[in-house]
Amino acid sequence: MTEERHDWARSMDGLLEQAWKRLGRGVADRRAAARHPTLATVDADGWPQARTVVLRGADRAASQLTVYTDRKAGKVAELLHTPRAAVHVWDQTAHLQIRAVAEAVIHTGDAVERIWSGLSTHAQRCYGFQPASGLAIADALDYEVWPQPEDFAVIELNVTHLEVLHLGHRHRRAGFDRSQDWAGQWLVP
Amino acid sequence: MTEERHDWARSMDGLLEQAWKRLGRGVADRRAAARHPTLATVDADGWPQARTVVLRGADRAASQLTVYTDRKAGKVAELLHTPRAAVHVWDQTAHLQIRAVAEAVIHTGDAVERIWSGLSTHAQRCYGFQPASGLAIADALDYEVWPQPEDFAVIELNVTHLEVLHLGHRHRRAGFDRSQDWAGQWLVP
Repeated sequence: MTEERHDWARSMDGLLEQAWKRLGRGVADRRAAARHPTLATVDADGWPQARTVVLRGADRAASQLTVYTDRKAGKVAELLHTPRAAVHVWDQTAHLQIRAVAEAVIHTGDAVERIWSGLSTHAQRCYGFQPASGLAIADALDYEVWPQPEDFAVIELNVTHLEVLHLGHRHRRAGFDRSQDWAGQWLVP
Repeated sequence: MTEERHDWARSMDGLLEQAWKRLGRGVADRRAAARHPTLATVDADGWPQARTVVLRGADRAASQLTVYTDRKAGKVAELLHTPRAAVHVWDQTAHLQIRAVAEAVIHTGDAVERIWSGLSTHAQRCYGFQPASGLAIADALDYEVWPQPEDFAVIELNVTHLEVLHLGHRHRRAGFDRSQDWAGQWLVP
């Protein structure tokens, strides 16, 4: 695919649609770039933190992204303290950078029981580390995994701002704001 | 390359060495995963921001990473306000996540003149957007690029904490702190 084929990059509607399409592909296809965004948070001391996550939901109508996590992971504590997140995807195929800023809500317990029950045994084994994820241990493998529903959390990311950058012969960059009902604005790259 | 070959993941020294090796490869090889880390910052309103950058330097002895940027880019303003950064790399080949937290220093003007002069004309054309990068414009291509040395900045990232996660048959995670002279600590993944 050559950049000349990226006709969608010529309009703001096209860029916004493409961004959500790529995010959706990340949810559906484990080999898509948006499968593994970087999630950035601010920790309790005010430092940025960033790590790879798996994208589990991308709902354009609700302006919402979804990530699953171990409830005791550092990112949960960070988001409970400062419920602000950035989600970043670089999609090499589309020559597209997607940057979302979002308000985060953590769901646990009964609210996520149905999602938990729907996971495969294999998928459930991503959660429930003991001791808790991030704690110091004497040796590398001094931990076990006991998947339990109470160790599972869903991070709901309510996108407030989306910025899309297409790298082509000439770059195109646009910002979209929830407060403007997602009307776009061209920006200098 | 199979995970069983990643013998370096068995020791903390091996993990730390591999992390710096991969970062160094990012500087030297434009196809390496660490060529394009995600740089996370905190903006003036306290929101995390994340974007792709090009890694230009990785010096283990100095615990330093280097990124070039347009001086008027949002990340420069953010780092001048809050000089704290996170650098994130997911290296699929090594099954390795590298997370660095760093203090940022911005260099401009005479201090970076030698680096600027050493760039190719092509490389210089990444800097000097007019109007300034991030400003609103009426149409997508209402900008020009006039590479000028005063529009160039170098972001020096002095790493204070490095966290490495290897995904294998069993995951291994270790944290390294500058304040501990980079002695490592195993962590629950």
